[in-house]
Amino acid sequence: MAENLQVQLARQPEGVPRATDFQVTKAARPSAGAGQFLIRNMYLSLDPYQRGAIAGRHMGHTRLNQGDVIYGRCLGEVIESKHPDYKVGEIVVSESGWQQYFVSSGSAHDEVRKVKPEAPLSAYLGALGMPGLTAWAGVEKLAQPTLGDTFVVSSAAGPVGGTAGQLAKAKGCRVVGIAGGDEKCKTVIETYGFDDCINYKAKDWAERLKAACPNGINHYFDNVGGPMLDTLLTQMALYGKVIMCGLASLYNRTSDGEFAGNNMGPVVGKRAQLLGLVVYDYYDKFPEFQKIGARLMKQGKLAIHEDRVDGLENAPTHFVKLASGLNNGKALVAIAPEKV
Amino acid sequence: MAENLQVQLARQPEGVPRATDFQVTKAARPSAGAGQFLIRNMYLSLDPYQRGAIAGRHMGHTRLNQGDVIYGRCLGEVIESKHPDYKVGEIVVSESGWQQYFVSSGSAHDEVRKVKPEAPLSAYLGALGMPGLTAWAGVEKLAQPTLGDTFVVSSAAGPVGGTAGQLAKAKGCRVVGIAGGDEKCKTVIETYGFDDCINYKAKDWAERLKAACPNGINHYFDNVGGPMLDTLLTQMALYGKVIMCGLASLYNRTSDGEFAGNNMGPVVGKRAQLLGLVVYDYYDKFPEFQKIGARLMKQGKLAIHEDRVDGLENAPTHFVKLASGLNNGKALVAIAPEKV
Repeated sequence: MAENLQVQLARQPEGVPRATDFQVTKAARPSAGAGQFLIRNMYLSLDPYQRGAIAGRHMGHTRLNQGDVIYGRCLGEVIESKHPDYKVGEIVVSESGWQQYFVSSGSAHDEVRKVKPEAPLSAYLGALGMPGLTAWAGVEKLAQPTLGDTFVVSSAAGPVGGTAGQLAKAKGCRVVGIAGGDEKCKTVIETYGFDDCINYKAKDWAERLKAACPNGINHYFDNVGGPMLDTLLTQMALYGKVIMCGLASLYNRTSDGEFAGNNMGPVVGKRAQLLGLVVYDYYDKFPEFQKIGARLMKQGKLAIHEDRVDGLENAPTHFVKLASGLNNGKALVAIAPEKV
Repeated sequence: MAENLQVQLARQPEGVPRATDFQVTKAARPSAGAGQFLIRNMYLSLDPYQRGAIAGRHMGHTRLNQGDVIYGRCLGEVIESKHPDYKVGEIVVSESGWQQYFVSSGSAHDEVRKVKPEAPLSAYLGALGMPGLTAWAGVEKLAQPTLGDTFVVSSAAGPVGGTAGQLAKAKGCRVVGIAGGDEKCKTVIETYGFDDCINYKAKDWAERLKAACPNGINHYFDNVGGPMLDTLLTQMALYGKVIMCGLASLYNRTSDGEFAGNNMGPVVGKRAQLLGLVVYDYYDKFPEFQKIGARLMKQGKLAIHEDRVDGLENAPTHFVKLASGLNNGKALVAIAPEKV
């Protein structure tokens, strides 16, 4: 009987996964039934999101049980087909899981996408695959950097970070990577062609990053979250953008409460926008706003509620009340409200 | 000699300020010299930002020393003038500090703005003043809510939150406030006309908020930061916006390290944008991206670097390497890279 090598879950990993959390087994090699086609997988993509998917923390993925085939995308070749849309010899990427052979009916669940190879096949799982699309969406749809911008990306040696940086570079940005180790930084600079790369395991990495980005950071493509994000936020240029893409600092967490630094999970999941506001930017709009506001007041659509005290000598105790959150409405001291 | 009552710093507050941190003294009432004008202050505005300004933590404000007049805006009347642009009887708001009389030459530093009263004078320090402008900029320039959106604002009884909610209400939103106490919630609902208001001091406030926003929150105007922001992030609707305006949870902090919840100070100060990214939103763009990516590869502008292992049976150890951050480049398992 022909075999189909599979990797299944042996037990749920705790924290950083171990090899013993997996089991390699041999199943029978399947055949294509009516309306189905058989894929012989050539490459399996390993991606950080799979850690969360196994635990049921990644969107669209239920928690795996013992004996379940591990989640994963493969690139392969159609070798049998009883499906009108898929022909023998076609190259496809699918949600096959970690196995040699995969039978599909082309349902949405299997996420089978045909590939027209114009590059090395394995690239369609990396720089031209889901990681590459992630990078492209972040650069072209969200960050939208322009000539001369400083673009920083973490996990820069990986396919998301590496592709994001190269796309920004192709758009005329100064591109600085952050990666864990000198070996990775070498890849980032020599292979990907970034302008610089900071090894975040160096003690003075934050100062080095600052030196590499003397005008501040216009775009930070964040694949890490956590304390590194806290540091990056302090180095942003005015009106800078942070693309919240990955949270590698949290992927191996053992409980929901164990967040290091910023709790950004929902920002990613909800595709939220967080926008910093400083009123001084809008001072030239004061006349426009006051006209609108006064009109709304006359229409009864803008009411005020004041927490007043009389006499400047009472300002300190009234300020203590405000700073303690005990005021109700606008805190105000009437110094001499009537004309003298 | 005519007097000028002033409030000065007695000593730098630690944590929540106390009345004994201030001293009320009598100075000589000044006169307008050549090119100057004298303002008789009618109202002093007390605002949460003043806590940070006293400590030198608020932009444009240096740390105060003992005897310095406390920072603050006043609304007053010009009562003497030797300045061509300011006439006796005009109403102005200025950076006077906490005192009865203020002499100015109209320099940028004094931030004197004339007011043409179309509403109660004190409103020009609140709903029609800097707090109101803050609310208007957040609603009209950043959040830009539309008919039927759910708009939530914290510190809802205060002039920023109260005005923001009423502006959103005037634009056809469902508006829910968050405030500390039933008294404040009463103001928010009865005076400001919000649809609902949640007392965050109630144990089950997060569940109540969820019940008040059954379709999720499209806009969160955040005046608080900290753990409340963490909770709000989990209740955002897809593509929701958070306006990062105030960080009341941090204003009385005693050290820079003492951050509760999110460290959002720089997001506000830098007017940064944080944008959540989920690649699945862009799957329909795969063909477009792959065409661009393959072309960049042919032009030598998109290089790949792979961390490959041969044989599916080696996938578990290779995944452990990836999950430990030890891979350099795209992690990949070659199952059967050559055609058989």
